[in-house]
Amino acid sequence: MLGLMQSQPLMISSLIEFAARHHGDAEIVSRRVEGDIHRYTYKDAAQRSRQVANALDALKLNFSDRVATLAWNGYRHLELYYGVSGSGRVLHTINPRLHPDQIAWIANHAEDQVLCFDLSFLPLIQAVHGKCTTIKHYIALCDADKLPADSGIPNLLSYESWIGAQSDDYDWPEFDENTASSMCYTSGTTGHPKAALYSHRSSTLHAYAAALPDVMGMSARDAILPVVPMFHVNAWGIPYSAALTGAKLVFPGPALDGKSVYELIEAEKVTYAAGVPTVWQMLLTHMKPGGLRFSTLRRTVIGGSACPPAMIKAFNDDYGVEVLHAWGMTEMSPLGTLCTLKNKHDSLSSDEKMTIRLKQGRAIYGVDMKIVDGAGEELSWDGKTYGDLLVKGPWVIREYYKGEGGDPLVDGWFPTGDVATIDADGYMQITDRSKDVIKSGGEWISSIDIENIAVAHPAVAMAACIGVAHPKWDERPIIAVVKKPGMEVTREELLQFYEGKTAKWQIPDDVVFVDTIPLGATGKMLKTKLREQLKNYKLPV
Amino acid sequence: MLGLMQSQPLMISSLIEFAARHHGDAEIVSRRVEGDIHRYTYKDAAQRSRQVANALDALKLNFSDRVATLAWNGYRHLELYYGVSGSGRVLHTINPRLHPDQIAWIANHAEDQVLCFDLSFLPLIQAVHGKCTTIKHYIALCDADKLPADSGIPNLLSYESWIGAQSDDYDWPEFDENTASSMCYTSGTTGHPKAALYSHRSSTLHAYAAALPDVMGMSARDAILPVVPMFHVNAWGIPYSAALTGAKLVFPGPALDGKSVYELIEAEKVTYAAGVPTVWQMLLTHMKPGGLRFSTLRRTVIGGSACPPAMIKAFNDDYGVEVLHAWGMTEMSPLGTLCTLKNKHDSLSSDEKMTIRLKQGRAIYGVDMKIVDGAGEELSWDGKTYGDLLVKGPWVIREYYKGEGGDPLVDGWFPTGDVATIDADGYMQITDRSKDVIKSGGEWISSIDIENIAVAHPAVAMAACIGVAHPKWDERPIIAVVKKPGMEVTREELLQFYEGKTAKWQIPDDVVFVDTIPLGATGKMLKTKLREQLKNYKLPV
Repeated sequence: MLGLMQSQPLMISSLIEFAARHHGDAEIVSRRVEGDIHRYTYKDAAQRSRQVANALDALKLNFSDRVATLAWNGYRHLELYYGVSGSGRVLHTINPRLHPDQIAWIANHAEDQVLCFDLSFLPLIQAVHGKCTTIKHYIALCDADKLPADSGIPNLLSYESWIGAQSDDYDWPEFDENTASSMCYTSGTTGHPKAALYSHRSSTLHAYAAALPDVMGMSARDAILPVVPMFHVNAWGIPYSAALTGAKLVFPGPALDGKSVYELIEAEKVTYAAGVPTVWQMLLTHMKPGGLRFSTLRRTVIGGSACPPAMIKAFNDDYGVEVLHAWGMTEMSPLGTLCTLKNKHDSLSSDEKMTIRLKQGRAIYGVDMKIVDGAGEELSWDGKTYGDLLVKGPWVIREYYKGEGGDPLVDGWFPTGDVATIDADGYMQITDRSKDVIKSGGEWISSIDIENIAVAHPAVAMAACIGVAHPKWDERPIIAVVKKPGMEVTREELLQFYEGKTAKWQIPDDVVFVDTIPLGATGKMLKTKLREQLKNYKLPV
Repeated sequence: MLGLMQSQPLMISSLIEFAARHHGDAEIVSRRVEGDIHRYTYKDAAQRSRQVANALDALKLNFSDRVATLAWNGYRHLELYYGVSGSGRVLHTINPRLHPDQIAWIANHAEDQVLCFDLSFLPLIQAVHGKCTTIKHYIALCDADKLPADSGIPNLLSYESWIGAQSDDYDWPEFDENTASSMCYTSGTTGHPKAALYSHRSSTLHAYAAALPDVMGMSARDAILPVVPMFHVNAWGIPYSAALTGAKLVFPGPALDGKSVYELIEAEKVTYAAGVPTVWQMLLTHMKPGGLRFSTLRRTVIGGSACPPAMIKAFNDDYGVEVLHAWGMTEMSPLGTLCTLKNKHDSLSSDEKMTIRLKQGRAIYGVDMKIVDGAGEELSWDGKTYGDLLVKGPWVIREYYKGEGGDPLVDGWFPTGDVATIDADGYMQITDRSKDVIKSGGEWISSIDIENIAVAHPAVAMAACIGVAHPKWDERPIIAVVKKPGMEVTREELLQFYEGKTAKWQIPDDVVFVDTIPLGATGKMLKTKLREQLKNYKLPV
């Protein structure tokens, strides 16, 4: 027997219309590419999103056609979030930090019909547009009078003249909530990027979950600064959750330096900010010399990579800002865990709380997770045992766009490619990437643990631990080390340095001194390349 | 094109399993009917919910069969919430405050197969079981040794022996998320009660929404006391939202007196409580004489009826507890609006904030609302204009169980039967019931406004305003008044009392002194009966 509740599909358009209706005058403030500050309201944003929808209709775009963006965080990008998905098309946010060839490859693979870009990316578009075979319309996110002459880009239109010609009256269509709404390509370190294809249902459920008190804790009392980019995994879903809650939105545009971010936080009375550690490091570096303080900032969520303990301490102890660790991935819309404490932790000392805060956090309802051994058997949640981390839930992918890479699921679970521990309270901590962990005699050694010890040595600038085939133990770890300029350390001294810092059997079998360790576009070490470089290396007997 | 996210239905069973897995040792504390305190964890609750599911299978209950409860807030009731719905049956919570004949009528109408009841309701069951034609199994929520001998109820089983025989291993089925999960009958003032039939989808979406920071703001850091009964509209969904967030749950059982509630709040470090004004009044009355304070309570949500301003002030100013007005109804699962302030209200004075706090609040994302005039035209949101309040959303009913009462929707909107204003910021305020508002010359007069003025007169104990047919104005208001014992007031004095307190045309045409005003079971004035009593009344010419 079915229930007798209203059958209303979960639609992304309903988020912006809710905000326009119930939080019509709540502000959306953007620092523009031009450097000035633009401010308007949810009501304005909804009107202009409807103009975007009409403009897409006028281009004769079909249902589910892809519309790409190459843009910073700002109000026009927000209008595209709603206008594109709300009218039934698919928003394809492209990461401008990818190699131009990869951008062209992605646009062709997605079969993008339209590309909307901030003027700061004009040189990039000029370089790649000739290789983009499916894009029919190029839109520059600017006023008509800012449109560059002789750009060399065919039929280039300014966003303002494009939508300005359209009515702000539009009946958002209702359709199957499982319809694709947006897509994002992973920055895969091997092979071509693969795309997650989100739906209206997954994005709306994620929007509810992301706003929960133990997740991002978003409300109409907040002014929220998403430093996390809208060009990657929907800025952690903040553009959706903000509309769901009626929170004030503050967009930083391209100005992510410490001074710009600090001034925006203060001027717009930001209460909550979300970003990656590098941006927060620039912010703290800017604030320290002049003894600057936050007047309104209370909470920040940090994700993308593990946050250094010193940064958590600085925010917490020196500035009174609560730092929450987040973990997720493109394939998860992206949020999987948040590190908020529980009722039972109230009485812990601040050091004990810090031990928990350093973990990636506990699962949000909607996401389940488990760790498994090499045979796929579930491992215990004791905070020590580690295994491959698998997740499932309504905002986790079941496969990649166009079926690339085949069926990624294992019994309905998505393998994250991370190795992690989970403690008895459900707090997960990433210990390594699955492909980097060293499997020695049936036991696993975290390459990150081994690297962390090496870089603690005063003469070590950078260190990468990889596994090398071993006749008896299958694999044994070695450590590749870049010395600091003018500093010296010998193989024996470094191996000696490991004594007492880890179990004997986890100490690397050898140290290899190298001039550089290959890095990817996002600053991550490329261990595949390192393994190639060292392919003729032989373990000492 | 569909998205490529995992297709996982929203299932109520996943809430309790999430809590067991990720918040396994979070506490659930219950004051039992026996008076003692019972404590266990979400892990225990999940195990016993699975035993309930197995016990229902053992009774050969079919999918969607109804299982009724007549029970206070407590851990066994919680297990039924999950065991019944999770296994695909429908939980039918019965309000024990209804008339016994109505309880029997409801049980027959729902075609309940099983009835689980607290021992405090044994006399009630003894009185009605002979009239309940569909119930095959009676379960007393008690230990085997507490089972009354010679109860006269056929095949009476104790809950503990019933589930004790079952395994706590159970694979929760997955099925269409629109499947009915629970039902609740409205306490309709006219005709037979009608039932809302909730679904797994509607309950899960409501659970997300209810936990949001601007709604009930529930988190794993909270200890939550739902004083609102689990026998009516799922205790505002708290049993679901608590599991979703891992919050500690504190159940008061039948002891709702001020002393018991106060002691429980203090002993269990309750941070958040939800209830109706009468219970909070008893609590404040208990606390005042001894100068008692709250150590941990920070927030309370009050709904069910409008909260007196003095109570909001007392909680806020004297005890430092934030009071949030809530509004909803059985047909809405039940939450529609919560009264939390916005970012823009930060700088208001406390008096200005109080003016907002007295309203019923703003819509939660998922619920939309509008006010319309007699012709169904939408009215403006100016905080003054009032009209019939209509709502829609995925946790609002589309029709009643068995189609009773026909199609209630108007163009997809559910008419709440309330008359309300909505201000420019989306804050809704109930001004009257639709059937009680007086329509005079095309304008509407709120019967509640007219009553509030009358009861402000020192000689008036109770007042009811009703409309009387008028040849020119269609309807004109009159006020029926019960005088306080030993006090006097004349018709002319009372009409004089209205001068300057409301618009001239809203002043009643007449005062009728009566000995009593008929009241319903829940203390509400029965204006239908009053109108009957006064059917021969004639307006003065």
